[in-house]
Amino acid sequence: MVIPALIERKRDGAALAPDEWRSLIGAYVAGDVPDYQMAALLMAVFFRGLEPGETEALTEAMLASGDRLDFAGIGRPVVDKHSTGGVGDKTSLLLAPMLAACGCAVPMMSGRGLGHTGGTLDKLEAIPGFRIDLSLEAARAQVRRLGCALIGQTPEIAPADKRLYALRDVTATVESIPLIAASIMSKKLAEGLDALVLDVKTGSGAFMPQLDDGIALARTMIGLGEARGCRTVALITAMDRPLGRACGNAIEVEEAIEGLRGGGPADLMEVTMALGTEMLLVGGLAREPAAARAMLDRVVESGAALDRFARIIEAQGGNPRVVDDPAVLPQAPVSRVWEAPRDGVVESVEPRPIGRALTALGGGRMAVSDDIDPAVGFLITARPGERVSRGDPLATIYARSEPDAARAAAALGAAIRIGERAAPLPLVSHRISSTGVEPR
Amino acid sequence: MVIPALIERKRDGAALAPDEWRSLIGAYVAGDVPDYQMAALLMAVFFRGLEPGETEALTEAMLASGDRLDFAGIGRPVVDKHSTGGVGDKTSLLLAPMLAACGCAVPMMSGRGLGHTGGTLDKLEAIPGFRIDLSLEAARAQVRRLGCALIGQTPEIAPADKRLYALRDVTATVESIPLIAASIMSKKLAEGLDALVLDVKTGSGAFMPQLDDGIALARTMIGLGEARGCRTVALITAMDRPLGRACGNAIEVEEAIEGLRGGGPADLMEVTMALGTEMLLVGGLAREPAAARAMLDRVVESGAALDRFARIIEAQGGNPRVVDDPAVLPQAPVSRVWEAPRDGVVESVEPRPIGRALTALGGGRMAVSDDIDPAVGFLITARPGERVSRGDPLATIYARSEPDAARAAAALGAAIRIGERAAPLPLVSHRISSTGVEPR
Repeated sequence: MVIPALIERKRDGAALAPDEWRSLIGAYVAGDVPDYQMAALLMAVFFRGLEPGETEALTEAMLASGDRLDFAGIGRPVVDKHSTGGVGDKTSLLLAPMLAACGCAVPMMSGRGLGHTGGTLDKLEAIPGFRIDLSLEAARAQVRRLGCALIGQTPEIAPADKRLYALRDVTATVESIPLIAASIMSKKLAEGLDALVLDVKTGSGAFMPQLDDGIALARTMIGLGEARGCRTVALITAMDRPLGRACGNAIEVEEAIEGLRGGGPADLMEVTMALGTEMLLVGGLAREPAAARAMLDRVVESGAALDRFARIIEAQGGNPRVVDDPAVLPQAPVSRVWEAPRDGVVESVEPRPIGRALTALGGGRMAVSDDIDPAVGFLITARPGERVSRGDPLATIYARSEPDAARAAAALGAAIRIGERAAPLPLVSHRISSTGVEPR
Repeated sequence: MVIPALIERKRDGAALAPDEWRSLIGAYVAGDVPDYQMAALLMAVFFRGLEPGETEALTEAMLASGDRLDFAGIGRPVVDKHSTGGVGDKTSLLLAPMLAACGCAVPMMSGRGLGHTGGTLDKLEAIPGFRIDLSLEAARAQVRRLGCALIGQTPEIAPADKRLYALRDVTATVESIPLIAASIMSKKLAEGLDALVLDVKTGSGAFMPQLDDGIALARTMIGLGEARGCRTVALITAMDRPLGRACGNAIEVEEAIEGLRGGGPADLMEVTMALGTEMLLVGGLAREPAAARAMLDRVVESGAALDRFARIIEAQGGNPRVVDDPAVLPQAPVSRVWEAPRDGVVESVEPRPIGRALTALGGGRMAVSDDIDPAVGFLITARPGERVSRGDPLATIYARSEPDAARAAAALGAAIRIGERAAPLPLVSHRISSTGVEPR
């Protein structure tokens, strides 16, 4: 394998053979291909793309570089959900116990927040004592026992993806649909899933703001999942404003629990139920959307989902009382109400500046190594399209200090625009499966 | 300077500021920018190109990374020629002494052969004792004394280009016109030239076979030279067959000496005189092409050019008797005549397979570290368009052994095609200057 010749062929628009991708990734992980050659190849891929067979081979090679979970004989469908990331998205905290209570096995491997988007692991760690660093063995056992484990990506999972992602991050080669798809799917397929539901965000706060890009990413990931026998569907959901009201780690846990109790903001619950319905359908536990939706309603109404969440929290070292008493969660010393500065219609609640303001409050990360403060955040009640009067309370800021709160208030002033009219995106706009794209 | 942000901007088609290029190259040479980020940037440049101001800043930064020759007060125009490389191209061996004899200062810094193309340094080293590793100080003194020094690129010249070129070579980022132009011109401008003539080869054996690419490369290099006060013109010359008859290091020296004596193959002499004419014109030693040509003819007819070559050879440790007695050059033990396999017209004499066959004989390099045998080669008398009969001698092979000669004969059979008609390129097709492109 002559690496410069491979790079040249990709640079000139040819497809590399599946075997070439396998050898290349193997040699890269073994240290036989230097980072500079991989960086040049990744930039060529950015410009030229990958054919479906290449993306499959790359995914396969990254998957093969590490360990996989195996749930053979578990007797339940093994199902997970993956989101491309957003602000205020706590659906994983709801769906994991709900689906476990419905009879699925949910080996949910999540990530941390970075930049303007939050991460499920950070939210879970807002629960006092909660540990996300289970071994793969312990996670496997917990899934068999409770139907769910909520863990971080262990070093054994797709180590090739870890190295490639770190290289892409410093060489401006992150934003490539086949590379993103291969990275996500190599980790998800390592969970040993029967089925997967993808939540692909669209709009200004999404990783890929353009609908076309989101659809292309979804289709690529679906192709990769289906090629390996994992039934995969995607919903395109709105990230032109935060999902739900809470943006911040502890208050998002509180809002998720509110949802598991049958409350929760309407937009959060609509997206959660849409994703949960798809999970039950692809997992084979329901044949019709209405039946799936009824199952989800039942585990909420009966308290089974909330109880399951408490048991998972307890199993992972956390304080299960949190499900009854949000005061168990860390509280910010300063809170401040933010009021509408004028009469008008809420035009937009921009997720990116809110995510950045959360990071500035200490509740998010600029670098992977940053510590975060789980108590800080925003509770934003303003919704796009709503008519407001000057002085109406639209948000509450939770901060470590008054100066922090003042800066956060200024950031909200830039993020929440009040004007004449609003055109928010539909919450769930498309359902995508291996058979095509259906508008909702 | 945030490197991933710079890479991203170039990736997305923006131009980097001149200061950014300067800082980047400075940081790269200092070891503060890793190869993997530079490799990703180079691949982005491959796809997006560089604007003229960027190419200038890059050239300037590479030039500034090392030493420069300075001929202030020399009282003669300082002129050089650069060729993009070909097979059988020994024009430098003729032009250096001819132009020195005409009154120019010629600080000629040349390269070695690699792949299918030969290098002037390898040819010079075929002369017993000849040393190309003069210090810059010694080269400067010899140019003042004899009007010419024939040396290799010293480590002090454009070290940034050396590192970048080595990286491009292993990351499939060589074939970028602005990167090629900046690399060549950073080294040539370090020679402290008043004027430069570029020989940009076109046709199947050229580094850039397409005429359009050759013209674009020439125009970019001319812009870089003129921006720094070095008058620069280019000729586009044919490399769809070897130049002259001799292909091989010692026999090319012999053919160059034949040319300096007033003989030499017609095609070689036509290209040599065309380049020499331009050198005298841009150097300001002649005002009209006819006058320049007359000066060149005079130094050949008078023996001044040959005498100058002998003095240069002697000054650099070589045996000056070579100019009178080619038997001083190393001789191959085996020679074998290659005959026309059929009646017909010589359709083509392909330079690339001949260059590769020369390497196979031991007369060229696959890797920079390979040793070469100066004695081996081909003397090819067949010219495209010539009518031949079966059994006519068309070439002589000089080899180390009979098996080598047999393999070389097979290679000639593939390279020299005999058919019905030929359409060779014009030897000198275009003259390019800062004012435009003129067909010849």
